[in-house]
Amino acid sequence: MIRQPDDASLGGELTGGEEALIEEFWAPLAVGHAGAWGLKDDAATIAVPPGDELVVTTDALIAGVHFFPDEDPFSVGWKALAVNVSDLVAKAAAPLAYVMNIALPASVTREWLSRFAQGLEAAQGAFGCRLIGGDTDRTPGPLSASITAFGTTPAGGMLSRSGARAGDRVYVTGTIGDATLGLALRRDPQSGARWGCTPEAATYLAGRLSRPRPPLAIVTALRACASAGMDISDGLMKDFSRLCRASGAGGRIEAGRVPLSDAARAAIEAGAMPAELLAGGEDYEVLACVPGPRAATFEAMAAESGIRVTCIGSIEERESGIGAFDSDGARLHFPRMGWDHFA
Amino acid sequence: MIRQPDDASLGGELTGGEEALIEEFWAPLAVGHAGAWGLKDDAATIAVPPGDELVVTTDALIAGVHFFPDEDPFSVGWKALAVNVSDLVAKAAAPLAYVMNIALPASVTREWLSRFAQGLEAAQGAFGCRLIGGDTDRTPGPLSASITAFGTTPAGGMLSRSGARAGDRVYVTGTIGDATLGLALRRDPQSGARWGCTPEAATYLAGRLSRPRPPLAIVTALRACASAGMDISDGLMKDFSRLCRASGAGGRIEAGRVPLSDAARAAIEAGAMPAELLAGGEDYEVLACVPGPRAATFEAMAAESGIRVTCIGSIEERESGIGAFDSDGARLHFPRMGWDHFA
Repeated sequence: MIRQPDDASLGGELTGGEEALIEEFWAPLAVGHAGAWGLKDDAATIAVPPGDELVVTTDALIAGVHFFPDEDPFSVGWKALAVNVSDLVAKAAAPLAYVMNIALPASVTREWLSRFAQGLEAAQGAFGCRLIGGDTDRTPGPLSASITAFGTTPAGGMLSRSGARAGDRVYVTGTIGDATLGLALRRDPQSGARWGCTPEAATYLAGRLSRPRPPLAIVTALRACASAGMDISDGLMKDFSRLCRASGAGGRIEAGRVPLSDAARAAIEAGAMPAELLAGGEDYEVLACVPGPRAATFEAMAAESGIRVTCIGSIEERESGIGAFDSDGARLHFPRMGWDHFA
Repeated sequence: MIRQPDDASLGGELTGGEEALIEEFWAPLAVGHAGAWGLKDDAATIAVPPGDELVVTTDALIAGVHFFPDEDPFSVGWKALAVNVSDLVAKAAAPLAYVMNIALPASVTREWLSRFAQGLEAAQGAFGCRLIGGDTDRTPGPLSASITAFGTTPAGGMLSRSGARAGDRVYVTGTIGDATLGLALRRDPQSGARWGCTPEAATYLAGRLSRPRPPLAIVTALRACASAGMDISDGLMKDFSRLCRASGAGGRIEAGRVPLSDAARAAIEAGAMPAELLAGGEDYEVLACVPGPRAATFEAMAAESGIRVTCIGSIEERESGIGAFDSDGARLHFPRMGWDHFA
């Protein structure tokens, strides 16, 4: 810690000491997990039930990179956890707990932090996990929140990217492309008028970007039926390509079968960019491969759990390559295949 | 991900794609932990041995806050892991694995990242743990590396801050204050000449700041004998106060018994600030409380493990308060009690 605690450039409104910050904003999020030690110790404990193993994933949100600096802090808190839970769910893990490193610039107010904590609390309530530890720092840079999330699966039960085999069906949960449209609307609010978006549709699309809701209830069906899975965060086509490559397989997606929300369908009919929806990021839905003989069971279990699943394609032999095709069987081309901050 | 991948402000030398970065710099650090999935999947798995539980801790280093922006990247990598291992060791946990979120500004070069990875590799080799997952992002702010580290203890065996009782002896490992002197030397290289530091002593003190080495081998003795423990990262006095408060106890430190390195002793004799050594941060030694009847065993086990431990005080009844005293029994006063970025 090379800065003096009283360095003015790290000043700001939050001056009660780190322990007071923890007590006010974070400790309430830890109630109910004994191993969190009330966030008063230096570490947390996780007791993994016998026969289970722990699944760990980590993802950060940085202001100006992953969210707009003027985003509602409730949404930032919600999304910081949701993007991690999305990975757990797609790996067939039941969320259990998380730790958070948050770095705060001097401009952060008590009100901002309070809203952020409310978003986090709402998300952990929705996803069934609790804060068990963390680290709150000052930063001269943008706000960032790094979460490491923990879930459990039966030992050996983590759903990998690499288990897909030729002949498997390819499913997605929910609908695809809403967040891409939500982002386009956020960047250019006029586009909503051009696409004939109703206010309700615009709100829906914005919410799909800012408050993703990973399909928690699909975990049981994934465990019972899936051969491979991952969440769709960097764009359906890019993530599908990754899954196929990891599985040493090819694959095809029938673009016309990709499920769209009513809002997305209406926007496309009014001229929104259809191809980009398959390549845009931030869906936070699950991409799952299911061997043919288990497909009916998978669909039935998904229906029972209230999660919409749609078969959008198939896993092929490696030689077939990886692609998306329109209803005439013509290969679609994408200006870019999804998000990569270092491409 | 609100920025376009081709946003020039996020450019720089590292343009091979995130997967290429992972393959080149991070995947070699994951070899040997099957649950890391070669860093090719979206999550990692940890199989906790039956009868053990997992201990989790997290800590971030931010350029300009926790290390000098021109610091040797080898040291930054080393220290990013070491500060987390320090918490595990003080909790009596054996290090097992870690995940890392790293956010890179455009100015980071391939050479910088390579040196950073070398430091991380050296540290994980020294501490016996492996990288099992992470997230590499661009940031418009300073470089930051958030690590979440995992260790194991026998179930229920995490050493807390709150188990100390009146009558316990207070121990520290290693020597105290070296990093504070190393930081002073770094800020004002002239002070070395004033303190009559030999080049060897200056190098030693600098290394204590930049490459802390938590006393891994003390874990066995802690498990067998200690009632409470924590690492000394924000200053001996501040951390001791925290431990006493968490335990509902008072405590006293005999300042004259606090172990100093030869380099620190020489610097103090030449006029360096003695009181600040007890309040300065970054020691990354262990503060442990041991009931009197187990003290001899603790000392013998520590000696056998090659770790220097020194009894520097005692836990008292709460009413006695918390303080440090000189050899005449006079209470010492500190200009500040340690580091807090929000104080």
